[in-house]
Amino acid sequence: MTTNTHSQHVSEQHLLGPDVEQARYDRGAQVLAAVDGEGGQSVVDALADIAPALAHHVVAYAFGDVYARPGLTHAQRQLVTLGMLTALGGCEAQLEVHVNASLNVGLTPTEIVEAITHTAVYCGFPKALNAIFVAKRVFAECDLLPVHAPAA
Amino acid sequence: MTTNTHSQHVSEQHLLGPDVEQARYDRGAQVLAAVDGEGGQSVVDALADIAPALAHHVVAYAFGDVYARPGLTHAQRQLVTLGMLTALGGCEAQLEVHVNASLNVGLTPTEIVEAITHTAVYCGFPKALNAIFVAKRVFAECDLLPVHAPAA
Amino acid sequence: MTTNTHSQHVSEQHLLGPDVEQARYDRGAQVLAAVDGEGGQSVVDALADIAPALAHHVVAYAFGDVYARPGLTHAQRQLVTLGMLTALGGCEAQLEVHVNASLNVGLTPTEIVEAITHTAVYCGFPKALNAIFVAKRVFAECDLLPVHAPAA
Amino acid sequence: MTTNTHSQHVSEQHLLGPDVEQARYDRGAQVLAAVDGEGGQSVVDALADIAPALAHHVVAYAFGDVYARPGLTHAQRQLVTLGMLTALGGCEAQLEVHVNASLNVGLTPTEIVEAITHTAVYCGFPKALNAIFVAKRVFAECDLLPVHAPAA
Amino acid sequence: MTTNTHSQHVSEQHLLGPDVEQARYDRGAQVLAAVDGEGGQSVVDALADIAPALAHHVVAYAFGDVYARPGLTHAQRQLVTLGMLTALGGCEAQLEVHVNASLNVGLTPTEIVEAITHTAVYCGFPKALNAIFVAKRVFAECDLLPVHAPAA
Amino acid sequence: MTTNTHSQHVSEQHLLGPDVEQARYDRGAQVLAAVDGEGGQSVVDALADIAPALAHHVVAYAFGDVYARPGLTHAQRQLVTLGMLTALGGCEAQLEVHVNASLNVGLTPTEIVEAITHTAVYCGFPKALNAIFVAKRVFAECDLLPVHAPAA
Repeated sequence: MTTNTHSQHVSEQHLLGPDVEQARYDRGAQVLAAVDGEGGQSVVDALADIAPALAHHVVAYAFGDVYARPGLTHAQRQLVTLGMLTALGGCEAQLEVHVNASLNVGLTPTEIVEAITHTAVYCGFPKALNAIFVAKRVFAECDLLPVHAPAA
Repeated sequence: MTTNTHSQHVSEQHLLGPDVEQARYDRGAQVLAAVDGEGGQSVVDALADIAPALAHHVVAYAFGDVYARPGLTHAQRQLVTLGMLTALGGCEAQLEVHVNASLNVGLTPTEIVEAITHTAVYCGFPKALNAIFVAKRVFAECDLLPVHAPAA
Repeated sequence: MTTNTHSQHVSEQHLLGPDVEQARYDRGAQVLAAVDGEGGQSVVDALADIAPALAHHVVAYAFGDVYARPGLTHAQRQLVTLGMLTALGGCEAQLEVHVNASLNVGLTPTEIVEAITHTAVYCGFPKALNAIFVAKRVFAECDLLPVHAPAA
Repeated sequence: MTTNTHSQHVSEQHLLGPDVEQARYDRGAQVLAAVDGEGGQSVVDALADIAPALAHHVVAYAFGDVYARPGLTHAQRQLVTLGMLTALGGCEAQLEVHVNASLNVGLTPTEIVEAITHTAVYCGFPKALNAIFVAKRVFAECDLLPVHAPAA
Repeated sequence: MTTNTHSQHVSEQHLLGPDVEQARYDRGAQVLAAVDGEGGQSVVDALADIAPALAHHVVAYAFGDVYARPGLTHAQRQLVTLGMLTALGGCEAQLEVHVNASLNVGLTPTEIVEAITHTAVYCGFPKALNAIFVAKRVFAECDLLPVHAPAA
Repeated sequence: MTTNTHSQHVSEQHLLGPDVEQARYDRGAQVLAAVDGEGGQSVVDALADIAPALAHHVVAYAFGDVYARPGLTHAQRQLVTLGMLTALGGCEAQLEVHVNASLNVGLTPTEIVEAITHTAVYCGFPKALNAIFVAKRVFAECDLLPVHAPAA
């Protein structure tokens, strides 16, 4: 989304001076880049011609208002997110972005696999297996297979 | 469940020497006590007259085989669990046990609230609100209200 | 589907005649009484002052068109239903009706408990536990506790 | 529900007569064509060699008994459906049919996008994004991109 | 939440001039009052001692950024919401608020019942019945029973 | 997974003599082969380089501890599973394995179709249709189309 379109959308939608909404958006964009990298930005870009408001909410609210908050590290947030996306089911596209994000914020492949192995207890094996195979695809692309068992 | 009933069940069900199943069960019981405290044990006890096998699987598999694994700390596991139970919906009974468990393993009320605030982005506000009100009940019982905002 | 195949199918499945809507409703009411007993009828009655059309669909479609079909016994249908209601989550009211229904159609408490124990693998323990405690309440009311382990 | 009220209700809603099953099916087929167009019919056709009864229920019950009812316009029904299919998750195939159906019944692309933007609040962003990208594919096929923001 | 606590929270959390966040919050509070009335405000108030940030997001994002948007009427938004809350399951607390909200924004009891009757097709009868009985409780409190069938 | 890797994993993870864990694993592997055939084994194999512990739990707990239990026939277990996988949504990969498994344990295509037709009542048509089209793909591969209606 170009700066022009974004500013235009912002002043249409939010009845606030463009600087403020830009500040929430910028804070969110900064966190989005650090956490989701390319995967997240491509989602935002793909929304430009259909739902720019939804893109704005992803960046300004989800990342700017929530993810940017102190209190939990990014790695801790990603653990909560891996649990949620596995439990929801049908969110493999987002799991792919977030397995990558989990690596970006410092979780190891071993820790990601442990988290998903843990989900089988609470979500059942079908959902856990769907999640583990998303992780397998991501790790294969990143040349991170095989994943090592945790040190005892 | 008395030791007699448990051993009897074990040797009926598992076709293994009673010592081995008892080892998986004991390891799980140890973790269950450390993590879930009273809340978890009362669930296991309530299963004795209806589904002792399910109780055995909770203790031996869920806690003995999974929760006891290295690779993630108990606090990390609880973050994944808070995400899952919020996302699943309808699991307020388990959320109550696990908010208590999260405190037991060293997460602070502030961290628990941050984790649930984070879930609204991925699960929506209805599920996040259902979870936060379970946490509120637990914190009220433990005299932990009000919860403080995270240090910036 | 061509008109020929449809007419043929219709006469195979649905019994034509002048009072067909009454016939669909009556067939459904008959099955509802045999399967759900009081529990199901009270749900239908409770709909009278708010959604009589929904009640009609429950009786005529759910029971008259589907449950009354040949091909599976009532006990087999109840096994599918126990799986679904456990997996859906938040359907404890319906699980209560259907644990009773399962007893009505000849499943034993042991078989019902086995089915729910089986669900933990596919739905996770939170949903399985929610279901087992509904069963426990029903069995307590019917003086069916304790439930015996299946013969080896 | 007394017999009087039921008969009265039945004659209000369901049209008695000797070819009633054909009538329910025909009424449903008519609504299906108006609402779902090709997408819905192809689903029904694909069921012919595996589950013709399920196809009959889709047409006679879902469309003939429910969708054909007065009280809500087709556009209003589609708003409820967009909410449900987004919330359920994993129903992208049906969302594709129903985004097309929503256009057929007079909702604009802008209104459809607003509805899905609204879902993020209640279902979370993963499910809302899965839905918006189904809409994007449909709109691309229909040459309806870009979608315009609503007039303030 | 008093004005003092809110302003303090706002300037701690959002790194923006307090006026701007107050503007998003105020717009949301205005819509919340018009739509949810007492039910919504009591939810926000109940969050004050545990998760004021979550309350802020409810008011500023959910109502200020999304619900306040043009493009759909409030009644149209409520139809989407009734679909979502029924489909999610386990959200009866929110359904109670939103059945009341639906009445506030001009949907009639008949229209609300039609929407829920419609959900049975897409969510199944257990979830539809759970929703209809929430509506029944709300209508009973508002002296709106019995609900009349829609005019043909 | 080769015997070497498995034994190594077993003694790393379970602090038990390798023979015992091997016994649970072997019992499970035996049931897995009888029930899931190739489909199940390929899932287990695909886990070898990412989550061998999860594979161990699938075989030793899910099949060795649960599926191997008496009390329900394999066909009865598959009926519960077909209900669960349809209700969960997003588990089409597992439904494919389990439709094949259902044939392996003696359910007929007609019975499988009846079970899925039954699910529409409890899960809604979107989920039932997703399941029926998985069954259609499996039956097509096995040359089992068309499926015959049940004998009246």
